[in-house]
Amino acid sequence: MQNKVYNYSAGPAVLPQEVLAKIQTELFNYEGMGMSVMEISHRSKPCIALFDETEALLRKLMGISEQYSVLFMQGGARLQFAAVPLNLFGQNRKADYIHTGSWTKYAIAEANKAGQAVIVASGEEDGFCKIPDLSEMKVSDDADYIYLCTNNTIEGTAIRPTQIPVTPLPLVADMSSNILSEEYDVEQFGLIFAGAQKNMGIAGVTVVVIRNDLLERSPKNIADMLNYKLMHSKQSMLNTPPVFAVYVLNKVLKWVEENGGVAQMAVRNKEKAALLYDFIDNSSLYQNNIEDSDRSLMNVIFNLPDAEEDTRFAKEAEKNGLMFLKGHRDVGGIRASIYNAAPIEQVQALIEFMKKYEAGR
Amino acid sequence: MQNKVYNYSAGPAVLPQEVLAKIQTELFNYEGMGMSVMEISHRSKPCIALFDETEALLRKLMGISEQYSVLFMQGGARLQFAAVPLNLFGQNRKADYIHTGSWTKYAIAEANKAGQAVIVASGEEDGFCKIPDLSEMKVSDDADYIYLCTNNTIEGTAIRPTQIPVTPLPLVADMSSNILSEEYDVEQFGLIFAGAQKNMGIAGVTVVVIRNDLLERSPKNIADMLNYKLMHSKQSMLNTPPVFAVYVLNKVLKWVEENGGVAQMAVRNKEKAALLYDFIDNSSLYQNNIEDSDRSLMNVIFNLPDAEEDTRFAKEAEKNGLMFLKGHRDVGGIRASIYNAAPIEQVQALIEFMKKYEAGR
Repeated sequence: MQNKVYNYSAGPAVLPQEVLAKIQTELFNYEGMGMSVMEISHRSKPCIALFDETEALLRKLMGISEQYSVLFMQGGARLQFAAVPLNLFGQNRKADYIHTGSWTKYAIAEANKAGQAVIVASGEEDGFCKIPDLSEMKVSDDADYIYLCTNNTIEGTAIRPTQIPVTPLPLVADMSSNILSEEYDVEQFGLIFAGAQKNMGIAGVTVVVIRNDLLERSPKNIADMLNYKLMHSKQSMLNTPPVFAVYVLNKVLKWVEENGGVAQMAVRNKEKAALLYDFIDNSSLYQNNIEDSDRSLMNVIFNLPDAEEDTRFAKEAEKNGLMFLKGHRDVGGIRASIYNAAPIEQVQALIEFMKKYEAGR
Repeated sequence: MQNKVYNYSAGPAVLPQEVLAKIQTELFNYEGMGMSVMEISHRSKPCIALFDETEALLRKLMGISEQYSVLFMQGGARLQFAAVPLNLFGQNRKADYIHTGSWTKYAIAEANKAGQAVIVASGEEDGFCKIPDLSEMKVSDDADYIYLCTNNTIEGTAIRPTQIPVTPLPLVADMSSNILSEEYDVEQFGLIFAGAQKNMGIAGVTVVVIRNDLLERSPKNIADMLNYKLMHSKQSMLNTPPVFAVYVLNKVLKWVEENGGVAQMAVRNKEKAALLYDFIDNSSLYQNNIEDSDRSLMNVIFNLPDAEEDTRFAKEAEKNGLMFLKGHRDVGGIRASIYNAAPIEQVQALIEFMKKYEAGR
């Protein structure tokens, strides 16, 4: 008999158990069709209905108005790093980037291939342990958009809903790792994208929410699969879409809805994160140096006195069924990812283990 | 109680029932980890082992030597239409294309965005109902590669293994719809790509087999996610890969191996296709106008006397549990896709229905 296992992976990550149970039950027979959802034609009515329902659920949960389009794409956030500048650059081929860690670094590099990324705010000097002050940010006059990442999985920081800068330029946000975790006001953004594998399901589908006027910017000479306007005109079925990943997304969105929507997710996430940060702050062994207001609700990072002990801690944790606590290989340390689907018991179990580990040193 | 349902979809398509059963059994607990394969970190040892095993299986089944690299990418064949010219174009920015239908048309359009696609052979004048004579093809002196599609799902034609042209230039093949169906000699190709959702699993992962010397062509200024060299250097984990789609691919490859490998798939596929084509050729109601030697083993297209009757036939078939027989919306008619996973009973059931339909007219 296996002991209870907890999954702290930064993504792919823990899924709601109710979602897995539904997938298992329906595996051989989707909607009475006598075949698996993995086998159905994307042109079939049940599949089109699945996509339509998934979009409607996302619109409802995030409060997305008809001024915006919803796209389901492939390639993860990483492909969006390229798609955003390729689609949104105008004649200036210039955009402002708020640099908050590894993921914005990659996004900046892609923008610099297609034009120019101007870093208008950066946390680099502070080792990315806080979000730069955005109120003093000097925006370029001729930028095509402003770009930010709302949650930095590696650095353990976040730009929380109240910290989103107000700007007349289209604001582009990578929300891959905290979409649906708190209530962001979609109207503040020109474009939001997010890979599904943290708060929305499995790797393989990327959600893009784009203000309709921005669709008109897509030039014809970029790859069809990156072209927002074309993807929109084909209802995200320009080619065979990742049907199963959209199906899991659908199930996760239903689970969010059944559990009180994004508002309730935020309540739970704040409670979970507070529990863990409070324990860390009151401990003499575990350390987190992130500015209080900039702490991520999704990825809680901390360190033990040295790298060797970080490793020992993570190994010991695995023996106790606490999986994937090792920090990202770029920064080391410990990282506990506690996405929407992680129950509070998962945080409590970690704290119990942290106490036990400290006592046993 | 539901009657037996047969799935003739061109993709996503029927999966081996044994594969679905394995997926269902393991859904909550992958390799004793106490979590679903959908939840595991792609950096975990079991996930890396899954990718390694999947690559090894594909190498064994297709006879891929160490002179070639295997990549798992996203975005389907459609993204490869763009990735191929973006990676393989040299200073000439020119490639030769063999034009055999809708899919090569889209591939040609993408190549023309990045450079020049020269159509060196075309079935267009013949309405794509045969493969153009490739022995008389005049290859450009300065082309960076030659491109073809081995199976045309919409037109119901194929370039069979013995028809592959011999050329000193790197030959690029879109094998999305007939990979693993017959034994192609990988050594004849510079690059092979295939979306998984026909003969290899579900939509969401694309296999790329590339001769190692061609990796050196990838320029640095293209999107990272399209860069073969970079993807290879990161063992297909440049970003979070579509783990579940690779997992299904792994299961399907094992199923092919357990069922005699590609050689045995070819025996079965030839038998299935012959049965159906023979019936059509001996019928006065059903018509297939494809040149005998160019007929696809995977997608058997046929027509009834008029479009109205095609529609009636497909509707009647659905009532009898024969699903997704309607031809592609671009060409109409009827299309029976009978990929590796379709058992011979599926062909027999169709023929029985065709007889019954004809008798009842």
